[in-house]
Amino acid sequence: MINSIVENNFIAKLTRNFPRSPFQKNAIQQTDAEIIRTDNNDYLAITTDSIVEEIACGLYDNPYLIGWMTVMVNMSDLAAVGAYPLGIMLSEVIPSSCPAHFLHRLQSGIRDACTACGTYVFGGDTNSGEKLLMTGTAIGSCKKDQFLSRVGCQPGETLYSTNQLGIGNAFALAQLRKQKNYHINFQPLARIKEGQLLNGIATACMDTSDGVFSTLDQLMRLNNVGFELNVEWLSTLHPDAKLLVDAVGLPPWLLLAGQHGEFELIFTIPKNSETEFLYHASKNEWYPIPLGKVIDETAIKLHLYGKTTTIDTGRIRNLPIQMDGNIENYINELLTIDKEIQKGEHQYVAH
Amino acid sequence: MINSIVENNFIAKLTRNFPRSPFQKNAIQQTDAEIIRTDNNDYLAITTDSIVEEIACGLYDNPYLIGWMTVMVNMSDLAAVGAYPLGIMLSEVIPSSCPAHFLHRLQSGIRDACTACGTYVFGGDTNSGEKLLMTGTAIGSCKKDQFLSRVGCQPGETLYSTNQLGIGNAFALAQLRKQKNYHINFQPLARIKEGQLLNGIATACMDTSDGVFSTLDQLMRLNNVGFELNVEWLSTLHPDAKLLVDAVGLPPWLLLAGQHGEFELIFTIPKNSETEFLYHASKNEWYPIPLGKVIDETAIKLHLYGKTTTIDTGRIRNLPIQMDGNIENYINELLTIDKEIQKGEHQYVAH
Repeated sequence: MINSIVENNFIAKLTRNFPRSPFQKNAIQQTDAEIIRTDNNDYLAITTDSIVEEIACGLYDNPYLIGWMTVMVNMSDLAAVGAYPLGIMLSEVIPSSCPAHFLHRLQSGIRDACTACGTYVFGGDTNSGEKLLMTGTAIGSCKKDQFLSRVGCQPGETLYSTNQLGIGNAFALAQLRKQKNYHINFQPLARIKEGQLLNGIATACMDTSDGVFSTLDQLMRLNNVGFELNVEWLSTLHPDAKLLVDAVGLPPWLLLAGQHGEFELIFTIPKNSETEFLYHASKNEWYPIPLGKVIDETAIKLHLYGKTTTIDTGRIRNLPIQMDGNIENYINELLTIDKEIQKGEHQYVAH
Repeated sequence: MINSIVENNFIAKLTRNFPRSPFQKNAIQQTDAEIIRTDNNDYLAITTDSIVEEIACGLYDNPYLIGWMTVMVNMSDLAAVGAYPLGIMLSEVIPSSCPAHFLHRLQSGIRDACTACGTYVFGGDTNSGEKLLMTGTAIGSCKKDQFLSRVGCQPGETLYSTNQLGIGNAFALAQLRKQKNYHINFQPLARIKEGQLLNGIATACMDTSDGVFSTLDQLMRLNNVGFELNVEWLSTLHPDAKLLVDAVGLPPWLLLAGQHGEFELIFTIPKNSETEFLYHASKNEWYPIPLGKVIDETAIKLHLYGKTTTIDTGRIRNLPIQMDGNIENYINELLTIDKEIQKGEHQYVAH
């Protein structure tokens, strides 16, 4: 089931002949970052993420944002396991034609993102190449044998996100469709403090780096449960994101479906620890957003056009590869699904 | 002085606004891998290296070798600080057109290199892109406050390499000039055990990932000393490498000058620990190769054409960037320097 998602299947194939380290505490796909026990019984969280496709397709063209995101996408993975960031290693492929002011802004974005996360660049590697390409590898420390995992939620628990949703996809919409009249301020902050607070409380946690539906779909497959979003799910959307889809006439649920995420954490809290959790959160001036609940059925359910529909999130996750990155075709496919939903003809195919 | 090398200068500019982590134990350029102390007083070695230019220029076209080198270049940096490898994170940018058998060989090279180093792939990230691009980030553990550094050698000490030299540049010559009649077997093994044995004994250590002259030049600049190679330096060359340059009529010292290294360690041993060091090495069936000695003068001296010449290694290090990667122009420049040396006209310009 997990491998009916094209990306999961590809990763499974790539790694099938790799033996697993005896130092590694997490299984494949179990966590947003790898958890490693050292000889000294120290627990490390390690993650790597590159900014490639985002640059190639024009989603990120601002050097400051590229630098910022190189750090932040990795810090968000550390946040999702509840780790404390130690630092980051960078590998930068820089075209020889790259202007000095561009490089300066790029490095400023890196520096500011590190400062915002209370972390540091340890070192790196620079290479020259045709196209700009950034890779970060972040290292964090975990409490002994205590880290947040994607696996462990149970039906009846409450589904939360760290903050409002949809700003990542709104930004992508504005950027890729050149709807520059609608400026979307996108500069996400990894939810490191929130992840640390969730450690030992949340039963499952994952960041929304690939969008909300991708996250819920992956959690569904890994936990063999489903999620039903609140009837008032529209109110969980970021107001700027909602304004944009309304203005351009797209259905707001596309803000959950698109795969440029908002880098929030999505997590589950058992009923009996909910009051204590919310109390601790509010003491830290953090007000998590309840999204819905964990259900027994392996399905993602959303209230749309006056009825509850089970969304085929697997089909939606595989769309970008099928559409070969063409944004208009991709949106058209989502609009086809929207019509199916309106007509009550949308079929969820378990695969 | 360190920044008169174009690459050093570029790195200094890129990183000048980055604050340094209080957890980091090494200075910039002091070590081949970054040394990090964790909260638990654990010492980690971390390094990142990408295979980009080697693929772009056709130096690496064999997928197995690309996979092997992605791991090995990083393990070699861990070896050069005397660390024990824990594992490696990978970021792979893979063209969608990449055939399955190519990918399989690539992953086999990664797996076999990990096995050869007694280490593991922890995890990674895959992206799709126009050109294949591999990044590894290796994590190792160090003994408390004990790691090999590039800085610390003194005049009078003996200069060694872990093994014979020149095979990296011989491979590059055969590959880039399409001299396929001369097959060079290039599949370096990171000198991890040797690095561990050197820990606490060698006063300076660095891997030859960029070739012997680059390594000696960097050590010269960092230590404010020089190196004089033995009169019999020719005997330190790998026999296959020597055969190739003889066959194609190039001067053998080019095997030290080129910047595709052999991934040996170059290190210095004080006179008073030399006997004990060689005894320990031989007990491990390792026979390090004496290359020469550390001298007071900041110069790299080589015996060539019946006289001792000080080589302008700074000029040679900056050549590839000046020649914009053109291999014939690069070799012609080295042959110009060879003529200068023969005529006794080669000038070492301190910069």
